[in-house]
This record gives sequence, C-alpha cells and structure tokens, in this order.
Amino acid sequence: MTAKDNGRIETARTRHEADRPSSALVLFGPDTPLKLDSGATLDRWQVAYQTYGTLNAERTNAVLVCHALTGDQHVANVHPLTGKPGWWSRMVGPGKPVDTDRYFVICPNVLGGCMGTTGPASTNPDTGQPYGLDLPLVTIPDMVRAQAILLDHLGIETALAVVGGSMGGMQVLQWAAAYPERVFAAIPIACGARHSSQNIAFHEVGRQAVMADPDWAKGKYLAEGKSPRKGLAVARMAAHITYMSDKSLHAKFGRQLQDREAPTFGFDADFQIESYLRHQGVTFVERFDANAYLYMTRAMDYFDLAAAHGGRLSEAFKGSRTRFCIVSFTSDWLFPTEDSKVITRALIASGGNVSFVEIDTDGGHDAFLLDEPELFATVDGFLRAAAHARGIH
Amino acid sequence: MTAKDNGRIETARTRHEADRPSSALVLFGPDTPLKLDSGATLDRWQVAYQTYGTLNAERTNAVLVCHALTGDQHVANVHPLTGKPGWWSRMVGPGKPVDTDRYFVICPNVLGGCMGTTGPASTNPDTGQPYGLDLPLVTIPDMVRAQAILLDHLGIETALAVVGGSMGGMQVLQWAAAYPERVFAAIPIACGARHSSQNIAFHEVGRQAVMADPDWAKGKYLAEGKSPRKGLAVARMAAHITYMSDKSLHAKFGRQLQDREAPTFGFDADFQIESYLRHQGVTFVERFDANAYLYMTRAMDYFDLAAAHGGRLSEAFKGSRTRFCIVSFTSDWLFPTEDSKVITRALIASGGNVSFVEIDTDGGHDAFLLDEPELFATVDGFLRAAAHARGIH
Repeated sequence: MTAKDNGRIETARTRHEADRPSSALVLFGPDTPLKLDSGATLDRWQVAYQTYGTLNAERTNAVLVCHALTGDQHVANVHPLTGKPGWWSRMVGPGKPVDTDRYFVICPNVLGGCMGTTGPASTNPDTGQPYGLDLPLVTIPDMVRAQAILLDHLGIETALAVVGGSMGGMQVLQWAAAYPERVFAAIPIACGARHSSQNIAFHEVGRQAVMADPDWAKGKYLAEGKSPRKGLAVARMAAHITYMSDKSLHAKFGRQLQDREAPTFGFDADFQIESYLRHQGVTFVERFDANAYLYMTRAMDYFDLAAAHGGRLSEAFKGSRTRFCIVSFTSDWLFPTEDSKVITRALIASGGNVSFVEIDTDGGHDAFLLDEPELFATVDGFLRAAAHARGIH
Repeated sequence: MTAKDNGRIETARTRHEADRPSSALVLFGPDTPLKLDSGATLDRWQVAYQTYGTLNAERTNAVLVCHALTGDQHVANVHPLTGKPGWWSRMVGPGKPVDTDRYFVICPNVLGGCMGTTGPASTNPDTGQPYGLDLPLVTIPDMVRAQAILLDHLGIETALAVVGGSMGGMQVLQWAAAYPERVFAAIPIACGARHSSQNIAFHEVGRQAVMADPDWAKGKYLAEGKSPRKGLAVARMAAHITYMSDKSLHAKFGRQLQDREAPTFGFDADFQIESYLRHQGVTFVERFDANAYLYMTRAMDYFDLAAAHGGRLSEAFKGSRTRFCIVSFTSDWLFPTEDSKVITRALIASGGNVSFVEIDTDGGHDAFLLDEPELFATVDGFLRAAAHARGIH
C-alpha cells in the first residue's frame, strides 16, 4: 500500500470513530449547551464513554477515570482500532486496584479527543464537514465541565473517586477544585498544577512537526482525504522520549544495534532505540487524529490551577473535604516529584486531607501505566479506605 | 519573500560557503587521501579553518579548538552569514582564558560540516553536483584524522592543548586517544565517551523531522534548489530544549505570554518559550545545511570510545602523558556529570594526569557557551599551568 492509501484508510477510520464510536454515546443538544473557557459555546456535542462494573443502589461507588493526552475511554477493554488490551488494564478490572467487582468505573473520552467525544475530527453539525481547527480550543476545565454533565446524565451526584495520570491527573485536580462536593476522593498521579516551560516547549515542537507536514493541509486533511502521518509520527517520537527515563532507555536499549553486527554507516535505524521510536511514531498515527493531538497539547499548556485562583494554589482547594492521594515517580522528569509536592503543600496550607506518595522507579513518566506494585498497592489501599469511609462494603 | 525564494537564497548561500568559505582553506589531493571509518576514502577534500594569535618560533603554543554539532570555525570573529559574534568569543580572544595574545588558536570546520570543510553540501568533484547523501558517513575519529592532517600541514607536531565542548569534547577525547603524543593538554567539556540511548533518541527525532520534509527531496534539495526549512527548524527546536535546563527555561520564560495579556485560544505562539523556540528554528535554517545536520548527529551517535578499545575506556588512554581537565555542569542533562566521571575514573585507572571540575550552574548543556566565570577561571588556570610546564612564558 502506498502512503496515500494509508492516509485514506486512516482518514476513514478516524472519521468513523470520531462520529460513531465503539462505545456508549450521549448526544447533548441546545438544552444542554457546553460553555467553553474560550467564550464559545457548543450547542450540539457528544460524549463517548466506557463503563465497567455496576453502580450500586445508593449510587455511591462510581470511580471516574480521566485519561491522558493520547489515551481514550478504552481503559480495560480491547481497543477497537489497535486490538490491544486497554491502556490501564493493569489497574482497572475485576480484583484489580480499581476493582470493577466493587466499583462502577466510568471513563469518558475527553472533549477535543478523537474517539467519539466531540473533537476536531468530529463532523461539524453546521457544515457536515469535519471541524478541523474550526472547533473552538478546549481547556482542562472544559473537559471536566463536559464530564460533570455526563455524570449528571448518569445520575451520579458524587463520585467515590476521580483518578488519572498525567493530563488525567490535571483533570482530577480540576474536578476537585471546581466540584469539591462531587469528589469524595481524588488520586492525581504524575501530574502538576500547571504545565512547565519545558513541557510547553516539547509540546510546541510536536505541534510544529505536525503543522510542518504538507499533508496537514492547514488542519483540513480529513476533508481532503489526507493524513499528516510523518509530522504526527515525529511529534510522537519526541514526546515518547519524555515519557521514559534515561535509565530505563539505557536498560532497555543501551547502544544495542538492531538486527545487525556492525553499524551500516547510513541513516537506517542502526540502533534499537531508533527502531523502537520509529515504531512508536508509526503505530500512533494509526489510532490518533493529528488535530486532536494539537488540541490536547494546547489544553495541557494552558492549565494553571493557581493562576485561575488569583495565583494561590491553596485557594483552589479552600474548604475542600475531598481526600487526596498524590502520587509521583522518582524518575519522572516531565512532572518531577517537586510538582506533586507543590500540590501537597497547597493542600496542607488549605487544611486539606492529603496523602503523598513518591514511588521509587526507573519507569519515568510512563510509570503510571506500567507494572508498578507500589502504585497498585497505594491506589488499592486508598480506594478501600475511601469506600469504607463512604459506607461501601 | 516566499518560502520558495528563501529556499533558493539559502541554497545559494549554503553552496557558496561550503565550497568557497570565508576562511583560510587547504585543499588536499590524491597524495593526501583521507581514509574514513566507513571504509571509503576521500581523494579530494578540503578543510576550512580560522586562526587567531601567532605561532611561536618553537611551534609549541598552538591551541586547537574543536567545535560542537552546529558550531563552525568562526570561534572569535563575526560570523560571515549571521553577522553575530563568534560562538566562543567569551572564551577565546586577547586577554580571554584561551588568550590569543599568548596562544596560537586554530579552529577547523569539522569534516561533514557545511562551512567549507568537505561535507554533504560541498560539490562532489566527480559529478560537479552537491554530494548530498553520496558523501560517505563520517565519524568523530574521521574528523580528528582530518584535523591531524591539517596540523601536519601547518607544521604543528604537538598542540599545547585541544579544547572543546559537547561534540567538540568528543573530538578532544578522540585526539587524546588516537594521538596522545600530539596532545600536551586536553580539555573536554560537557561531553561523554559515548552517546547515550536517550541522546541517540533525540538525534533520531531531529533526523526524522528533516527527512519528513518533502523539500528535503531525499537529500538532493541543493541540486533541486530547495531547502527543508520546516523540518530542520523542528529538529533544531527539539534539540534546543535539550541544551537548556528546566530551571533556566523556567527562569527565562516561566509561563509568560508573548506580547499579549491573555491567551488567544489558538495555535499562535502564545507563550514566550514558543516564540523563542520558533526563532531558534528559523534562524538556524539560515546558517546550517540540513544534510550536515544529519551527518553531525550520526557522528555523535556512533561515538563510543570504550567500544573502540575492547570495551575498556581506560585502554583508550593507556600510557598517555597528556594532562586532562574534565569539565561538567550540574544542570547538563544531555551529558550529565556522571558521563564526565566515567572518563575521569578511566583516566585514573590508566594512571593518567587528570583534574575534574563540576561547575554548579543552571545553564544546562549550553553552559559551556555562556558567561560562566568558574569555567573561564578553570580553563585559564589549566592552560597557564600547561603552558608553564611546556616552557612557554
């Protein structure tokens, strides 16, 4: 197949999943408008989501899982596009820390995403064409606002817990700040109350890589049947390095050559790390919309919880009765432990109920997705205690 | 001007500087072939270089400066393309640590570069067209071999010192390993005896960004009058982040907006860091050849001094009488201090003469180019002592 064929197939799959996802779907109309931070309002919008387990009669056992930048609602089921296990199937499932035998787990695709919730790949109801960049920019608070409307729709007043890592963790913090009475417990993992300058810089590189691809077509590639494969792959490669630690890369790849005895003195993927990164880039393109990548990165860049509360992070949590469990990883250089300590200190200053756990691992930022027994034990214990405190047995 | 016009102008400037540089130039012919690690041989090749100061009668006061990835021979003079001061004018000049009133300073453009020494932008004498990817790949040892031939040509048997940072530091190490008797003193700064997996990964992202640009034209853009501006700019942006520290980015830019009061809810450069990075990308394209960028990054990737000596770094320096001064920076995460300690320990194990200095700074990898008084004092003192030991007064 040619790159053009690949582009057409990806375009078709992306458009299909964006409008008619392989998930539960709620359509909202003008009676439930979604007001965005940008000042724009969506009159017709939709949320795609997955659920696992059963909501109890008291409606008190719901756990909302918020996904990360390139995640989606397929937390613990086989992914409809890749055929791979859900991205957090280690954490969520029967007998797992987020135990679907005990809790009713909900994971919506975020606003601005590409797996069924309204995003730039969705069909604009006003034009019948994909939104592309005509979709107003969305923020982390916008994502959370949409999720709150979904919980209303599902008849859930207060979640037992809101849990997520990275961009998911930002949503957890925003949930706790915006709707403290609706969040009994909160588990923000590997995140920060704002995006750092260095993180914005890496995001900007990714966006420029996408936009530099002529097949991005100023954001109109879906309408034109194209796909900015190369640009998005480069963006993913750059980002992927930031998700791992130097140590884990060294342990996994070192300077090992890929299926050869000696270097080729050329620009093939001589080293295993090169081959691995190229693979990450190519497979990502098959499941993710390039414009959605721009929207997600921008939402993270804009996130600054303290700035939204007069410059004092403790104000964001003032009077909150939510129980917090903050988790960081020693080798995470995208959201270093210091970022989690800033949140912890703000919660202490605001008189909040907070535990903080730093987990010693070489897994880097991605550790929240990996087999980390201490993370599992932490989430398991914290959730059990919260359930007990809420009278769930 | 259109991007196409810019491309043509860059192509013309790049070709001109690559063949007829604004520097001293030596042409080597079949009587001085250059054998490369790849197995290829260059029968006709050239080296462009700058010199500062005067060689003494004993020919003992030469200091060879080795430049970094995107550096060139214009150490301490106004750059012919950018009009800016030389890249190390803080370090090299009259009364500076590398004092051109005392030492005869030579800086050649490296093999594979684009400022007059044979590189992919040079005209292939066999075809009359730019080499592009037809130039055999070059390695750090190849660069040093070419420099040794230049020193022969200049009548310099033993340099008082070989000095350089980053890729320049790798050349310093290679000089000391390959020609110990020709290096009285060596100052490798902010470098390592090999490129790490993470560093190879970042280089690979940059190469893929260049190659993803259709105007790269499979490496033949100069012949076609094109310039892969966008791809090379993205590569530079990604690399630039790795040259700075998180702290310095935060101190310099934080989350400050660029010339506006509020975010635009779009993909313009809202944040100062974005604007800064884009500027870094755009200005780099005006002075650097994209294929040379591929060659330089590959040369660094391949560098592994221990592997070239049976896996034992100390073997590389066995019996060496060279005086070493190893310098690292606390906030350099591209070549962390540990990389310098590995070199230092190998030198101690081989019975070498070595000083090691770790300089406390937020400047990141780029600290070797910045105003770092402790670095200047270190180089100044070490060079004076070396000169004294060599009987230069």
